[in-house]
Amino acid sequence: MEGGPTLRLRVFDLNCWAIRYLSKRRQERVQLIGDVLRRESFDLVLLQEVWSERDYSDLKEKLGSRYPFSHYFRSGVIGSGLCVFSRFPILDTLLYQYSLNGYPYMLQHGDWFCGKSVGLGRWWHGVIMAMLPPSCQLHAEYCREKDAYLPHRLVQAWELAQFIRHTSKAADVVLVGGDLNMHPEDVGIRLLRGWTGLRDAFTEATRFEGCEDGCTLVPNNCFTVKSELLPFPLGIRIDYILYKVTSGVPRGSVLGPVLFNIVQGGWHPTEPPLSSTEATLADVVTEARTEVGVGLRAAQRQRYSTGRMAVLALLLLLLQAAAALGTLAGLGAGQPFPKLSFTLLAFLAIGVLLLATGLHLFHTMEVKMLQGTEEQMRMALRALQERP
Amino acid sequence: MEGGPTLRLRVFDLNCWAIRYLSKRRQERVQLIGDVLRRESFDLVLLQEVWSERDYSDLKEKLGSRYPFSHYFRSGVIGSGLCVFSRFPILDTLLYQYSLNGYPYMLQHGDWFCGKSVGLGRWWHGVIMAMLPPSCQLHAEYCREKDAYLPHRLVQAWELAQFIRHTSKAADVVLVGGDLNMHPEDVGIRLLRGWTGLRDAFTEATRFEGCEDGCTLVPNNCFTVKSELLPFPLGIRIDYILYKVTSGVPRGSVLGPVLFNIVQGGWHPTEPPLSSTEATLADVVTEARTEVGVGLRAAQRQRYSTGRMAVLALLLLLLQAAAALGTLAGLGAGQPFPKLSFTLLAFLAIGVLLLATGLHLFHTMEVKMLQGTEEQMRMALRALQERP
Repeated sequence: MEGGPTLRLRVFDLNCWAIRYLSKRRQERVQLIGDVLRRESFDLVLLQEVWSERDYSDLKEKLGSRYPFSHYFRSGVIGSGLCVFSRFPILDTLLYQYSLNGYPYMLQHGDWFCGKSVGLGRWWHGVIMAMLPPSCQLHAEYCREKDAYLPHRLVQAWELAQFIRHTSKAADVVLVGGDLNMHPEDVGIRLLRGWTGLRDAFTEATRFEGCEDGCTLVPNNCFTVKSELLPFPLGIRIDYILYKVTSGVPRGSVLGPVLFNIVQGGWHPTEPPLSSTEATLADVVTEARTEVGVGLRAAQRQRYSTGRMAVLALLLLLLQAAAALGTLAGLGAGQPFPKLSFTLLAFLAIGVLLLATGLHLFHTMEVKMLQGTEEQMRMALRALQERP
Repeated sequence: MEGGPTLRLRVFDLNCWAIRYLSKRRQERVQLIGDVLRRESFDLVLLQEVWSERDYSDLKEKLGSRYPFSHYFRSGVIGSGLCVFSRFPILDTLLYQYSLNGYPYMLQHGDWFCGKSVGLGRWWHGVIMAMLPPSCQLHAEYCREKDAYLPHRLVQAWELAQFIRHTSKAADVVLVGGDLNMHPEDVGIRLLRGWTGLRDAFTEATRFEGCEDGCTLVPNNCFTVKSELLPFPLGIRIDYILYKVTSGVPRGSVLGPVLFNIVQGGWHPTEPPLSSTEATLADVVTEARTEVGVGLRAAQRQRYSTGRMAVLALLLLLLQAAAALGTLAGLGAGQPFPKLSFTLLAFLAIGVLLLATGLHLFHTMEVKMLQGTEEQMRMALRALQERP
């Protein structure tokens, strides 16, 4: 309905890369980000990778006059790194933890220790917002072909899509901002957009000011690792603002920060005919399901091999216990091994047993979650095919 | 609106206590449960503690003709134990994992290993359903006063309430069934009901057939541990069916299984005046917040003591390393300790270091989640107080 009251939203989204002790010139950058935010007047500010609560408190203090409402989402060992600043009161928040988020033993990636979650806020005019924290460091092209994290990232994309579907039924405007760690044409992005009906603010924009092709990780940035971006001389686009308007129509010009002009009313944006959309969506879900299946088989293999290792370590321990008992009972001809090696071997076996058992439990969980996602996708495919 | 089309729902809810290798006469009981369900014609069947997927498959095969739609919620190492059978197509499901669920080292309770989650299903007529799995074994009265799990259970009740609020905005009927492991007057139940507006099917029932006071864990049950129920000669009520109708009015007679007669229409059930309700709700949230605060301080103490233990173990290791290096460099006067004791001590220190570090990480997470919940509750209280 043209001519209705206009809702204009200025949204700012940034992955701050503010890891304590690790990120270069962290405090200086956080301070500068705060300066920019205080100078500009956004309506919503979505920040990711603010890992230190101290940084959040500093920002909160600095921005209190311009953005009186804020929230920091706590989760995981280190935290979720997600926070939001707002000009409007935040009515309610909810945190959803992904069921899979990398491996605890991949310490160098550290994803498992981060809060594997999506934060949701609800504002008074029905805006709902979700932020996806970076699920894991995106690997450059030479690694994209053997991306071990792909099934986990697809499970996360699926869970995020499901979460948005279920929590946004009554929202007028849905905004999803964050570092999705996926290229625009990747199956995870297509799945997320297809299953939720979210639109990409960059591709829908009538006006855009920013890096070429909307890239958000560019070689010109003095903090990026140049070698990782070798296959992409222009850079890559992995940060997104996605949106959906259910009770109005977005007419947006997108600058660095996204700007929405939302006309309140009952008019719905024109959609492509349902049947063709659903055929494409079914293809995307099928593709994602295939990848999840590949991950499932890998997880099953790892569950099996860690289980076998645990059993072997247990057998070794039992053998040692039998030998020790035999020596004590005076059956053996003296001490077959030197005491020290014997003890060391026992401790080694105990260590392997504990480690292998822990990993076995972890991969059991992984198998369950991948199976669950695969089944949900099958259910979704059936629903898509059965719809008249 | 009287006289509108009537929606009649027959709902069955049961904690099946079907733990592989542990539950007595499991297979026999599961078979009998299947027989009853096949004989009766319910619309929705919510089962908890079906830990074995094999049991679920058996039930699915048996019940396929009467309940063509079903779903098993997978999560955790062992699983969530939740499944649902339905006469109506299940459009969509979602699993929400609680952020806290007991302690990994409390092996005898085993809660940490279970799927700490609530399952949600959506049906074609807008029914939304959530099932809360047993969060942990309820302790009898002598333990209720020193209930170490209370803060965790309150976090779960709060997260469940938030989850229901956010996912049920567009639902006509909300049903929550499950073993909540809380007495009707407990703060967790009051919090859940107050914050969501859910009604207790038992107290609202005009007709009821079942155990006295609606008890669901009774001494007469040959599988219950009599000693645990000594302070409650009649038994206790810990299983619930809660409901909310937003676009109709429930007129229910409640038998063993809950029976709803829902008249579709725009009429809303009469509610007590808003201000008095909100005053009570604020009291409940305050009470819950106090308990969460108690849990938070306990978790902070544990985080501190496990951290200290890790540091001590690390110091011991460093000391040993220095002594060993000193001996190697020929500084010491020979070997100060026998080699075996020295090695044993080193392994002990490594073990303590690993264990204490793991526990420290766990309690750090616990602190974060308790802090997060406390802040959400504070936000809720402010919203309650500020509302005109």
